[in-house]
Amino acid sequence: MSHNSFGHLFRVTTWGESHGPALGCVIDGCPPGLSLTAQDIQVWLDQRRPGQGRFVTQRQEPDAVRILSGVFEDERTEGQVTTGTPISLMIENVDQRSKDYSEIARAFRPGHADWPYFAKYGVRDYRGGGRSSARETAARVAAGAVARKIIAGVTVRAALVQIGPHRVDRDRWDWDQVGQNAFWCPDAGTVAVWEEHLEKIRKAGSSTGAVVEVEAIGAPAGWGAPLYAKLDAELASALMSINAAKGVEIGAGFDSAALTGEENADQMRMGNEGPVFQSNKAGGILGGLSTGQPVVARVAFKPTSSILTPRETVNEDGAEIELRTRGRHDPCVGIRAVPVVEAMTACVLADAFLRHRGQTGGGAFLPGSRSRT
Amino acid sequence: MSHNSFGHLFRVTTWGESHGPALGCVIDGCPPGLSLTAQDIQVWLDQRRPGQGRFVTQRQEPDAVRILSGVFEDERTEGQVTTGTPISLMIENVDQRSKDYSEIARAFRPGHADWPYFAKYGVRDYRGGGRSSARETAARVAAGAVARKIIAGVTVRAALVQIGPHRVDRDRWDWDQVGQNAFWCPDAGTVAVWEEHLEKIRKAGSSTGAVVEVEAIGAPAGWGAPLYAKLDAELASALMSINAAKGVEIGAGFDSAALTGEENADQMRMGNEGPVFQSNKAGGILGGLSTGQPVVARVAFKPTSSILTPRETVNEDGAEIELRTRGRHDPCVGIRAVPVVEAMTACVLADAFLRHRGQTGGGAFLPGSRSRT
Amino acid sequence: MSHNSFGHLFRVTTWGESHGPALGCVIDGCPPGLSLTAQDIQVWLDQRRPGQGRFVTQRQEPDAVRILSGVFEDERTEGQVTTGTPISLMIENVDQRSKDYSEIARAFRPGHADWPYFAKYGVRDYRGGGRSSARETAARVAAGAVARKIIAGVTVRAALVQIGPHRVDRDRWDWDQVGQNAFWCPDAGTVAVWEEHLEKIRKAGSSTGAVVEVEAIGAPAGWGAPLYAKLDAELASALMSINAAKGVEIGAGFDSAALTGEENADQMRMGNEGPVFQSNKAGGILGGLSTGQPVVARVAFKPTSSILTPRETVNEDGAEIELRTRGRHDPCVGIRAVPVVEAMTACVLADAFLRHRGQTGGGAFLPGSRSRT
Amino acid sequence: MSHNSFGHLFRVTTWGESHGPALGCVIDGCPPGLSLTAQDIQVWLDQRRPGQGRFVTQRQEPDAVRILSGVFEDERTEGQVTTGTPISLMIENVDQRSKDYSEIARAFRPGHADWPYFAKYGVRDYRGGGRSSARETAARVAAGAVARKIIAGVTVRAALVQIGPHRVDRDRWDWDQVGQNAFWCPDAGTVAVWEEHLEKIRKAGSSTGAVVEVEAIGAPAGWGAPLYAKLDAELASALMSINAAKGVEIGAGFDSAALTGEENADQMRMGNEGPVFQSNKAGGILGGLSTGQPVVARVAFKPTSSILTPRETVNEDGAEIELRTRGRHDPCVGIRAVPVVEAMTACVLADAFLRHRGQTGGGAFLPGSRSRT
Repeated sequence: MSHNSFGHLFRVTTWGESHGPALGCVIDGCPPGLSLTAQDIQVWLDQRRPGQGRFVTQRQEPDAVRILSGVFEDERTEGQVTTGTPISLMIENVDQRSKDYSEIARAFRPGHADWPYFAKYGVRDYRGGGRSSARETAARVAAGAVARKIIAGVTVRAALVQIGPHRVDRDRWDWDQVGQNAFWCPDAGTVAVWEEHLEKIRKAGSSTGAVVEVEAIGAPAGWGAPLYAKLDAELASALMSINAAKGVEIGAGFDSAALTGEENADQMRMGNEGPVFQSNKAGGILGGLSTGQPVVARVAFKPTSSILTPRETVNEDGAEIELRTRGRHDPCVGIRAVPVVEAMTACVLADAFLRHRGQTGGGAFLPGSRSRT
Repeated sequence: MSHNSFGHLFRVTTWGESHGPALGCVIDGCPPGLSLTAQDIQVWLDQRRPGQGRFVTQRQEPDAVRILSGVFEDERTEGQVTTGTPISLMIENVDQRSKDYSEIARAFRPGHADWPYFAKYGVRDYRGGGRSSARETAARVAAGAVARKIIAGVTVRAALVQIGPHRVDRDRWDWDQVGQNAFWCPDAGTVAVWEEHLEKIRKAGSSTGAVVEVEAIGAPAGWGAPLYAKLDAELASALMSINAAKGVEIGAGFDSAALTGEENADQMRMGNEGPVFQSNKAGGILGGLSTGQPVVARVAFKPTSSILTPRETVNEDGAEIELRTRGRHDPCVGIRAVPVVEAMTACVLADAFLRHRGQTGGGAFLPGSRSRT
Repeated sequence: MSHNSFGHLFRVTTWGESHGPALGCVIDGCPPGLSLTAQDIQVWLDQRRPGQGRFVTQRQEPDAVRILSGVFEDERTEGQVTTGTPISLMIENVDQRSKDYSEIARAFRPGHADWPYFAKYGVRDYRGGGRSSARETAARVAAGAVARKIIAGVTVRAALVQIGPHRVDRDRWDWDQVGQNAFWCPDAGTVAVWEEHLEKIRKAGSSTGAVVEVEAIGAPAGWGAPLYAKLDAELASALMSINAAKGVEIGAGFDSAALTGEENADQMRMGNEGPVFQSNKAGGILGGLSTGQPVVARVAFKPTSSILTPRETVNEDGAEIELRTRGRHDPCVGIRAVPVVEAMTACVLADAFLRHRGQTGGGAFLPGSRSRT
Repeated sequence: MSHNSFGHLFRVTTWGESHGPALGCVIDGCPPGLSLTAQDIQVWLDQRRPGQGRFVTQRQEPDAVRILSGVFEDERTEGQVTTGTPISLMIENVDQRSKDYSEIARAFRPGHADWPYFAKYGVRDYRGGGRSSARETAARVAAGAVARKIIAGVTVRAALVQIGPHRVDRDRWDWDQVGQNAFWCPDAGTVAVWEEHLEKIRKAGSSTGAVVEVEAIGAPAGWGAPLYAKLDAELASALMSINAAKGVEIGAGFDSAALTGEENADQMRMGNEGPVFQSNKAGGILGGLSTGQPVVARVAFKPTSSILTPRETVNEDGAEIELRTRGRHDPCVGIRAVPVVEAMTACVLADAFLRHRGQTGGGAFLPGSRSRT
């Protein structure tokens, strides 16, 4: 609703600029009584943290999160728990490298938000991209860690499935591989291909795009709501809001266009706990509601806009200039987007769960039964 | 926010089931003083209306819209104008063909919303899909007609760019062609290919998917808002909420993944009214804000789930059954989605315009100037 | 959020003008499976209906409500039930008495919304007050009827406690009396006093103010939410939004100012189902949350602004004029506000209940227990 | 919408507990380019700060505010200005006096939020009232300082008009007196009366209620929106959400009930800049919209619930106990509420202004003119 918030019952408001003193978020509507420590959040932040490898930005940020409110511990609680009041999280910026910004202070870097921020606001914090910096995604990952607590029975996991023109081989997909390489790659055979490709890109001072795939396993049928709070619409919004995202698809996504109705409509048989689908072209969502199958989405990320090749652009004074964007940048922002995609998916599901519980009392009707689970 | 509403300052709430007495919407937040008659809305509804050709549902609905509130006319107004109060629109359902629903009343049609609606609500209006029917999109088109009045300087137009595996040839793109054929096809050379493909699909009792492309020309730079009311995020949500949508992309979209930074970041030169871009890979949106270039999005639609081939499924009693979905159905829902995509895009832009005006006073800073346009 | 909506999970959007073809509302977020017929709503509308006595407007409106969506009935449901999709209610305006509006079309009637509507919108439907007419409250009463279904265990009832300077004698309070007289008066001894007062007012072509008191019995502890969705804040907003309302107070309200802490803070003893309070100065709300005691609020209504005495005012042309507001008007709008206050209270509580259930799963912790009821 | 946020285009989210490390707020939707330093906010916080006199809590808090985001300064801006992105404000808690909370940790203090917080959440931060502490109002005052920047032409000022049974003499009202005494009292003659009354109350370990009156001068006609975003409804919600508030009234408020229509409806004559009213019974609001007159509201505050007299209550174990609430408390919370009432009023007006500008483009129609100012 407001500009820097998302979610409805589970609502996250983020704040902070790349080179300000800190960034953070306020998480409102969290159920009370959930075990939550800073460390529970830190583990997810550490996955997203910059400075981790050759192919991500070399900015060194500890990204140490503090919980400023919304938790409590005494001798009667089992450790520190949420109280149901707003959870304020803060991450201080440490490595705002002293730098001369005079070159880009007035320039509109191609592919960046500089120009429309100037057009809209007239004034902008140009240091490191200011509010439009990917550093803001740390707040999303932190919020996602809280969301996971709410939907404890749901596993949300993501992988990188494409870098540049190179896609993973889905026949070799192994989720265990994702944590074994620097690229969140589920296909061991593709790792070397990507490594070589990225090395070439990096040396050329260029950059490349990527595609992230996320799945959420364990969400029961019935989450989401027709017609404008559809689960897929909420996911689309949340995922498209990530920096550099240019496309979102659910299940078969754009490939659906070339399918026939026979290929597309997932058939069902009866299982012990409701319908069992024979395929998942729907990506776990029909009519905007979860079906009980894994929720599957993909997000396309454009190449990092900061590259070493000089590019034609203009500046605030209306002068035509050439610009080379130096600095500590990721050759492929899609890599670090993986934990962010997971986090946003978790937030959307947590919100959908709470709203579902609000309207219906929770649970689902199963075939053969006349009452909710 | 609420389930059946979208937009913030320009807010639309829709209601109605496929076989209820009527459907409609309430449009709240419309600026006062805009000329608005039922006919202004009817022209857009007529484009979406079923019963128009061989390749769309044969249900005969006049889709005659009534304006129940929010407009006024006297001798001092120039015709009928909006008053700034809620505009209530109603379309009566006429052709709810008397039919025996006993076969599908308890069955979960594959690819339809039947199963998750049952799981969530326990009770559902199964006649014609009830609330999940594409008939609801008439309300969207009506709302879009009002939205267009608000952003009178912006042209919103869409075309079908893919049916099944057949894409248009972009080198032959001609917007004037779009109104000349039954498929909103911008490429005269592709019409026959699609016609043949659809005839085959229709005879086989099958269905096919499609991709719609929309562009909005004339939106100035600066509409949208970081970070969760980004223009692309709002578009993604609005477009993904359309029935059968499975993917949304902006500008180069999923193709961005395979681009290099040099190919992707649109370069700028200085024009008379601000920066002029040398390409539009961004689809007119950077950092969640419009750039002044055409806003370009594409939406993938899955094949109609109702097909004549018997399909395996289960029913409310938990029995495994085979089901053949008879009825008056579109072999390609993507065709009739074209005006709906346009309407949703217009609504998102109207809302973004009003919010931009609210926060900033409207207008944009241009290079070389220190004040708003 | 939007202008003509209220509530969050239980959300009501109203539309319609006094002299338009109809008015109505869309109720979104209603739980599924609740028994609901038009007659369930009509009984409440009939209480509010104009043309019922000497002291309310003589406009004759049947106020017959139609349910256009959101309900369903077949052989498996127990009568007609809600489906969880938007409930669209419509009431056609019948007695828009043909009238010459030329006198007031350009005039700003003192005490009415004419002037600020003109200032804001430039154009307005002046017939019968247009959107600002109390006829809109019919939609509120209809929504309230649905809200009562959601909080079936809660009794919401209101009474008139003051007309002009005459207050009821609280020692003689008898809820059974409320339905026995034309004034919703809980004190039989006051009826004649009010009757005489109103007769005098009516004959003088004057009008008088009133105070309505509402109580909701049966709401458990814990509804509401700190800090800006406090139950009292939500009630204040909902009740102040009623036409002619000028004040809202909870429990001891404005009298609290003159109390000491000892008099004000309600003491507690332990009962079988939680704390039992020894007084209810708090009006059933502490810290923005319900305490389990009756929720008690009062609303002050100003005198009807339409009176027969000529009054000084100006018109749209800037001319200073004298105006006598003829027409069918209530000498005391507070009388007909009683069912509206009840309805708004029911809506606020239904919304609070659903949100409470969403965030917490529902129920409450009781003293001596470590788990929710 | 969400629990700890208020406002729509100008939206404030607060967080923090009385005895946590810090408290603060995130302000979203602020227009860009407004001059804003920490000192601009500090001056208002200093007015609300505890430890200022005998009749307010002796807790010593510097309430030093830090701006963590949303502002920027370089050689081209005129000092530090807002950027249009979220403004995160933080105030560290310093004087969380080490204290033994064992007595109240499980007890429900009468008149406090302890019991319903326990009922709702099961767990709560009982130290100093946790989230329900009046310390949270510091965040409101900080937000109000930003709101004032947005509505720079509007003067928002408040005064205390009643303590216990003692009301100010309105014939002696002098705004200049408000800053001259410890009670924000506009009537020099009443100061001694209050002083004596409070001294008696303080010595008795008791407390007393109060009434605050606020007025906003300079808001043009047309702010607010029918029907549920009415300016009076928004004010009612915002003011009732302040700790200890039990009633809100606009203009003549509850006194309206005893007025006749002739006394109540403010007559108008024509002035140079629109209608000039001959009285202000309406409190500057008609039909939910500002009239151009001063907006006037009053808020009733109950006596501080913490008193030294032992009171009967129960605890979390369900035991009946007697409790004496020791600690550093205000004998009259209404005194420190004065800057909070001002701040909330400023926030409501700023939001109304932005929304008005969004929907209409801003300005107002004046009599005799056919276009907006």
